[in-house]
Amino acid sequence: MGKTLVEKIISRNAGREVSAGELAVCPVDVVMIHDGTGILSIKEFQRLEEAGLTLAKPERTLVFLDHAGPCPRMELATDHVKLRHFARERNAVLYDVGQGVCHQILVEKWVRPGTVALGADSHTTTGGALGALGTGMGSTDVAMAMAMGENWFRVPETLRIELGGQLPDGVYPKDVILYLAGQIGSDGATYKVLEFGGPAAAAMEMSDRFTLCNMAIEFGGKGGLFPSDEKTRAYLAARGREEDWVALAPDPDAVYERVINVRLETIEPMIAKPHTVDNVCPVGEVQGRPVEQLFLGSCTNGRLEDLEVAVNMLKGKRIAASTRLLVMPASPAVYRGALDAGYIKDFMEAGATVLPPGCGPCSGVHLGILGDGESCLSTTNRNFKGRMGNPNAFVYLASPATVAASALTGVITDPREVI
Amino acid sequence: MGKTLVEKIISRNAGREVSAGELAVCPVDVVMIHDGTGILSIKEFQRLEEAGLTLAKPERTLVFLDHAGPCPRMELATDHVKLRHFARERNAVLYDVGQGVCHQILVEKWVRPGTVALGADSHTTTGGALGALGTGMGSTDVAMAMAMGENWFRVPETLRIELGGQLPDGVYPKDVILYLAGQIGSDGATYKVLEFGGPAAAAMEMSDRFTLCNMAIEFGGKGGLFPSDEKTRAYLAARGREEDWVALAPDPDAVYERVINVRLETIEPMIAKPHTVDNVCPVGEVQGRPVEQLFLGSCTNGRLEDLEVAVNMLKGKRIAASTRLLVMPASPAVYRGALDAGYIKDFMEAGATVLPPGCGPCSGVHLGILGDGESCLSTTNRNFKGRMGNPNAFVYLASPATVAASALTGVITDPREVI
Repeated sequence: MGKTLVEKIISRNAGREVSAGELAVCPVDVVMIHDGTGILSIKEFQRLEEAGLTLAKPERTLVFLDHAGPCPRMELATDHVKLRHFARERNAVLYDVGQGVCHQILVEKWVRPGTVALGADSHTTTGGALGALGTGMGSTDVAMAMAMGENWFRVPETLRIELGGQLPDGVYPKDVILYLAGQIGSDGATYKVLEFGGPAAAAMEMSDRFTLCNMAIEFGGKGGLFPSDEKTRAYLAARGREEDWVALAPDPDAVYERVINVRLETIEPMIAKPHTVDNVCPVGEVQGRPVEQLFLGSCTNGRLEDLEVAVNMLKGKRIAASTRLLVMPASPAVYRGALDAGYIKDFMEAGATVLPPGCGPCSGVHLGILGDGESCLSTTNRNFKGRMGNPNAFVYLASPATVAASALTGVITDPREVI
Repeated sequence: MGKTLVEKIISRNAGREVSAGELAVCPVDVVMIHDGTGILSIKEFQRLEEAGLTLAKPERTLVFLDHAGPCPRMELATDHVKLRHFARERNAVLYDVGQGVCHQILVEKWVRPGTVALGADSHTTTGGALGALGTGMGSTDVAMAMAMGENWFRVPETLRIELGGQLPDGVYPKDVILYLAGQIGSDGATYKVLEFGGPAAAAMEMSDRFTLCNMAIEFGGKGGLFPSDEKTRAYLAARGREEDWVALAPDPDAVYERVINVRLETIEPMIAKPHTVDNVCPVGEVQGRPVEQLFLGSCTNGRLEDLEVAVNMLKGKRIAASTRLLVMPASPAVYRGALDAGYIKDFMEAGATVLPPGCGPCSGVHLGILGDGESCLSTTNRNFKGRMGNPNAFVYLASPATVAASALTGVITDPREVI
């Protein structure tokens, strides 16, 4: 019987052939905590230390200060002090404030095809685009992995997302994943894997694959996976990591719980309305609603390719006076790329505010908390009530193109009307 | 009897000759509120509106969202909503988040030699470097000026700061003002003006004059003043504002309360230790103390010339792994200048985190709040207990050069040891 991609990955890591529904113990290749959840992990870890355990792989244990960096409150700053000490005392790898969003740094530097990457954060699914099982766990489970170098998994069932055709102009992979959110629902893939395949998946660039896998968790998914192919190899090679590459693909006769066929040419620009990610509709249906803030960035859409789409629409123009546009490159490498390409200057000339690499306003801690009654149109991945720090505000999710188009008008705008 | 600079300015605005100690009513040429204090001003102003008053000069009434932009808390974000509405409904000038520190924008675009510039913020003294009476008032007094277009002043006495000689390498005007803080004390010039003059003042560049006048308030001063001379004219001309220029100088026989002579060649790099601005000593006396955070920016030292001093020391090197360096250009114009000069890239390559134009961590609201027990070495103007958001932390004040030198070592370092 053929295997899905996740069955293959777990089998090779467990050292035996497993199928959906079975339990398996796998080595964890890289493990990550951050300032949002990490304090809980290190508390638990210190209990394990008292029992005689140590960091299994300090050189592949990552500590990020990205959710609240630079810090907006003394309590969080004191958490930062603890996390820094924790990392330094144990020779773990510290990414201090301004050094990027954990998920972006993970894919740029750490996640290896065919392995298991674990994080105390749900969007660790992003790494699945490299053909790894990137997944989030609770802080205490992550602490166990930090000490043991492994963890147990129930092999997930898989929804196969078969992508065919070509996206029309003005429509982007973010629209595809929002469309799928509407089709599958926010709990439609609980503990399952979304496996992306088909000719349009094979043609898709890595930046877009990250966007799709990043949001697999928004369906309840344990992971989102792409095969590891020549595009994966090129991505790694461009970052001096070609030796991390292995080819990986599901078997042609793999058994899927369900196959969902998507013809990309049928997709329109999509938007998730407040207050759930599956409350989606074509952008046109809410065209004209005022948005006081726009955010371009995050682990979902803060890569150079995302900035490029937006900057090409904004260059030489000014954002509407009634709104404000926050732009946050997801990593220092993205920031430097944007500097070299002139994008930072173009964004500033258009009236945008460029933030340092990190999570920014996405998780509602700082750098763009909304006021009562305000709306934000964002390239991020969640829009539940209060997500951007204020339960009396409204968050819409869309593509970088829709955000750029709407920044120019101050109201929700279909990007096909601007390009 | 000859007149001091402030007597001349108030006389020309009051339309009659006045001297220190007299009361005078003056038109206010430009008036400014911001998100730290502005809510109080607009509350008071709305009471005046109920009595039939309106904004006297909407086109020269400025509303800044700089202290908490982009916003770290929903309560402050809702204040922002109110301030935006206030400005838009009354055709006042709004500077939204990321559009710069109020005092820097005031000097770049608004303050005119010989006039009175009023702000609901103590560091409005910065504008005195242009030969204007820039001064801060309480929020309600500012509301009165917004409605009346004028306010009353008691003509201040003047301390004349006579600057002679030349600064040694590695010593900067920030060191001079810190040295003076030690000499005069934080209440040594209460309601007085610090009038800078002498050959070294005449030779001083505008950027440095702003630094000196910015900190006049740290002595309790009503203002800090420089003559308006050819350097003033060139500064304005470079910003398309040459028509704003008038020549202004004190009379040779002006009567000063006290004259303080400073020979610049005797000044060393200075530092203000926690928790008062006048707790100063030469940097060498505290050399070697670890600093977990460094901040280069603010209305005191966030100009292109400040960034240049620091970047020249940091370029091609890396900051110490034990510390973090936050860099914040004071305005979009400064940011663009730094982009064009390659400084932003150089700062990033050195490991710094570049923040969007605004007040940043200076006033303890966000973007670099300290953790318990941490120290910050900062180019800002205040270091009282809790200033950077945590009463259990420690703030040292110094020049951009001392900050850059210390960033490289992770401990307080005399810049003369690095350059």
